[in-house]
Amino acid sequence: MVMAINGGFPGPNITAKVGDTVEVELSNNLNTEGVVIHWHGIRQFTTPWYDGTASVSQCVINPGQTFLYKFKVDKAGTYFYHGHYGMQREAGLYGSLIVEEGDQGQKEPFQYDGEFSLLLSDWWHQTVYQQEVGLSSDPFQWINEPQSLLINGRGQYNCSLASRYNSSAALPECSLGGGEQWAPNVLKVLPNKTYRLRIASTTSLASLNLAIGGHNVTVVEADGNYVQPFSTTDVDIYSGETYSVLFTTNQNPDENYWISVGVRGRLPQTPQALALVNYLPNHASKFPTSPPPVTPQWDDYNRSKAFSNRIQGLEGTTPPPPADYDRRIMLLNTQNTIDGLTVWAINNVSLSFPPTPYLGALKYGIKAAFDQTPPPDTFPDCRYDIMSPPANPNATTGNAIYTLDFNSTVDVILQNANTLQPNDSEIHPWHMHGHNFWVLGYGDGKFQRGDEKLFEKAGRRPPLKNTAVIFPFGWTALRFVADNPGAWPFHCHIEPHLHMGMGVVIAEGVEFLADVPRETLSCGLTGMMFSGNGEEGHN
Amino acid sequence: MVMAINGGFPGPNITAKVGDTVEVELSNNLNTEGVVIHWHGIRQFTTPWYDGTASVSQCVINPGQTFLYKFKVDKAGTYFYHGHYGMQREAGLYGSLIVEEGDQGQKEPFQYDGEFSLLLSDWWHQTVYQQEVGLSSDPFQWINEPQSLLINGRGQYNCSLASRYNSSAALPECSLGGGEQWAPNVLKVLPNKTYRLRIASTTSLASLNLAIGGHNVTVVEADGNYVQPFSTTDVDIYSGETYSVLFTTNQNPDENYWISVGVRGRLPQTPQALALVNYLPNHASKFPTSPPPVTPQWDDYNRSKAFSNRIQGLEGTTPPPPADYDRRIMLLNTQNTIDGLTVWAINNVSLSFPPTPYLGALKYGIKAAFDQTPPPDTFPDCRYDIMSPPANPNATTGNAIYTLDFNSTVDVILQNANTLQPNDSEIHPWHMHGHNFWVLGYGDGKFQRGDEKLFEKAGRRPPLKNTAVIFPFGWTALRFVADNPGAWPFHCHIEPHLHMGMGVVIAEGVEFLADVPRETLSCGLTGMMFSGNGEEGHN
Repeated sequence: MVMAINGGFPGPNITAKVGDTVEVELSNNLNTEGVVIHWHGIRQFTTPWYDGTASVSQCVINPGQTFLYKFKVDKAGTYFYHGHYGMQREAGLYGSLIVEEGDQGQKEPFQYDGEFSLLLSDWWHQTVYQQEVGLSSDPFQWINEPQSLLINGRGQYNCSLASRYNSSAALPECSLGGGEQWAPNVLKVLPNKTYRLRIASTTSLASLNLAIGGHNVTVVEADGNYVQPFSTTDVDIYSGETYSVLFTTNQNPDENYWISVGVRGRLPQTPQALALVNYLPNHASKFPTSPPPVTPQWDDYNRSKAFSNRIQGLEGTTPPPPADYDRRIMLLNTQNTIDGLTVWAINNVSLSFPPTPYLGALKYGIKAAFDQTPPPDTFPDCRYDIMSPPANPNATTGNAIYTLDFNSTVDVILQNANTLQPNDSEIHPWHMHGHNFWVLGYGDGKFQRGDEKLFEKAGRRPPLKNTAVIFPFGWTALRFVADNPGAWPFHCHIEPHLHMGMGVVIAEGVEFLADVPRETLSCGLTGMMFSGNGEEGHN
Repeated sequence: MVMAINGGFPGPNITAKVGDTVEVELSNNLNTEGVVIHWHGIRQFTTPWYDGTASVSQCVINPGQTFLYKFKVDKAGTYFYHGHYGMQREAGLYGSLIVEEGDQGQKEPFQYDGEFSLLLSDWWHQTVYQQEVGLSSDPFQWINEPQSLLINGRGQYNCSLASRYNSSAALPECSLGGGEQWAPNVLKVLPNKTYRLRIASTTSLASLNLAIGGHNVTVVEADGNYVQPFSTTDVDIYSGETYSVLFTTNQNPDENYWISVGVRGRLPQTPQALALVNYLPNHASKFPTSPPPVTPQWDDYNRSKAFSNRIQGLEGTTPPPPADYDRRIMLLNTQNTIDGLTVWAINNVSLSFPPTPYLGALKYGIKAAFDQTPPPDTFPDCRYDIMSPPANPNATTGNAIYTLDFNSTVDVILQNANTLQPNDSEIHPWHMHGHNFWVLGYGDGKFQRGDEKLFEKAGRRPPLKNTAVIFPFGWTALRFVADNPGAWPFHCHIEPHLHMGMGVVIAEGVEFLADVPRETLSCGLTGMMFSGNGEEGHN
């Protein structure tokens, strides 16, 4: 069972040009579920109500209803869109969104002869309904590893295309007669050309690594921002991230080659996903002579960190970060318990989304819509031991927000910690809506005064991104300018983690917004306000 | 996976007295689904907005929201409550609702020493999410027969409590060590007393028959209306019906006795549900010597019709129907196809609920909310052959309503027909919200001019009910007075049948209603009206 868009899965590819206004009419044809669509990586400057996040930017669209998203795309790059309510992304609500450079103006700082788009995801046989129940159960029931990895919605199960290269493979080889729905994606290329591969990961859980057999790739874009090009054998990609890489078809043209996508950061229990680079005029049914690239060892975090540290802003396209910050927010990521349930908490608060969207509550001054006491700017206890399970594992639920001074520069130190299990800390890719941030640096252990010096690696130019990972037992330092009026989630992009409370909400400059479209506010206390039944707001 | 209320399944028993105002606060703690609760059999006179039917009486309550139902119960009887959105009833949203005679005023026209309540349902292992997808798929995927029948939420699977009496039973005997969640309900009785058994069927599909081993029962109430008492060995009960029966513990007091509930009207593939009548001081673990009563042959419709025809109004409590009608509506029930999907249609229209609740649309004159051309009052073709599959199986989808003159007397002839399969016609229990109707009569074949004479069986007093069955290839004639201002669904109570369009909506006297509470109207065009964004209504 999959949640489909226009009768298909994944949803249709959306392509636009810089400066375009994109209009998407969303009609909810589900039976009993509301729905929203988030445009991941799109800044939504002056249109925060079209960010498509339930409880934050709008009320959900109920069955039978239609909603028009209308927003300007102002930055070329590789993006995607997806459901942002419950775990509807994992259920299948996603698709590719590509913004090309406009007819006038900037060109890409690189050249290529053709391009392909690979939207990566992970797939479970258990429904998200059952998973959501399990996540909120005592004893806790984790969703476990996916049954398949998907490339543009295609994957295999109970077999592996790679098994033909390994006589002792655990899985049988997938039979391929041609035309199967699950047949691998084929990228038809000509020899001695350069191709752009746009890669986006909308996984619910899996951190991935992509490689092309026999070909190096050159990374040129990350999260819709051009980066200093660098050559690599493989690319780590975390949920919420996008990359563009270039590859040149300079290998033996009599052969085809595998693209492999495998799991990193968790002990893999899912076969690699494979796609085929088909050198024309070879037939696509010609199996590559060489086996698919082997995914690097899942827990070789030094390798992962080295890759992440190679991502740098591209001079001429990426401004450097402001030299200093106005406010620093330390966000301690911990696994906790509340009333016997397992949750994730940030500075000891597990995020629980309220029924009234923050944006409307802020605009109309409806204080009852969410906790008015701001969450803490730093760890609940400065002596917190991030290397051990929490001494006091109990957290609280909350929905207070971080209100930022408009146009101020904010640093966020995302601090990882040990989970409830001894000697365990997990990967968390954090995604911020409405902004790009500079990734100042990654560090091991607990962030300490003086660790700022690690931001300044010789000659390193911090990249702009909208998603950045925190490594196990480590920290990640980000800087951004609070220049986008609205309310914006900032959260772990692993969907069950967000469902378990792993996120915060930031807001800035809402006072500069013109009236929020009322069709985004028909629920909760804003809905009551408009119907004359509720608390009148005071702005 | 079950949809639970207050952490339990079924929902809590609600008991009230005539004249009470019942207040129920519904908090939606689901993840992504809206919810409503319908108070089945409660008239909701002057409070049609609290009838709890999505798209008709109110907007759904979204996750995180709370809604207060507040209504007066004005008639003693056996009722129940249940979800009325998508197939959430089958998912588990139901519970018992009993209204007792008030401290002053009328007493029951019968006496008893104690009472028990048995809420009957059917249970599938496949989720309703999957079932809903299957029902809307091409090829059509039917939900098939339930895995278990439940009594007050308890049932067995892959075993039968009855197998100990039958050495050649297909199913093994259920092991009973004591305390199992699935252990049968135990009715503790004293010898030589009379007990009232309140039976309600909230099945999604199954038509049932209930019998108590060794005991006759006397039927005294049906759908909250007292009936002319009659003695019977067993009771047919269709989805949406309730009965009270009396039984006297006049059998051998050294024994315990089985209550059995089995399937009728469809070839049974589900074991009987059993409960135990435990004569005290016998231990409840003492198995009855006699096997559970055998459910009558599923397709012995003559037996079913004989039972239904024995239900008569009780003089002194049930007024006779008005002598004549002001309007007759013939509703032809057919199975059809629309765009390759299998549906049910009434006079060739398959009901599709609109996003704006009818009640608000009518009150505020929002004509765009639903089709303004009334559906036909009679068959699309008066020559329609009900004994054969439809010659032209294509139907249309619609959401127009039957607007009735206030206080007029309306006859409805529900006409059954052959399905899309040759020689097949099914049971359909039709339930009307907001009203009781008199069941004038049942007939075989196609209703013809002159069949009115079948209404007048010698001495038979038509009973008042809110649910009445149409038998395969037959018709059922109902009469009611349109005296309850509001909009009311009238539909087959088999949940997948309603999901497939088997229902109509009637409305009357909405102009006499004071303002509809705005919290029931926050969605669709009424929501837009209140937020100043939509079509302004004209009343």
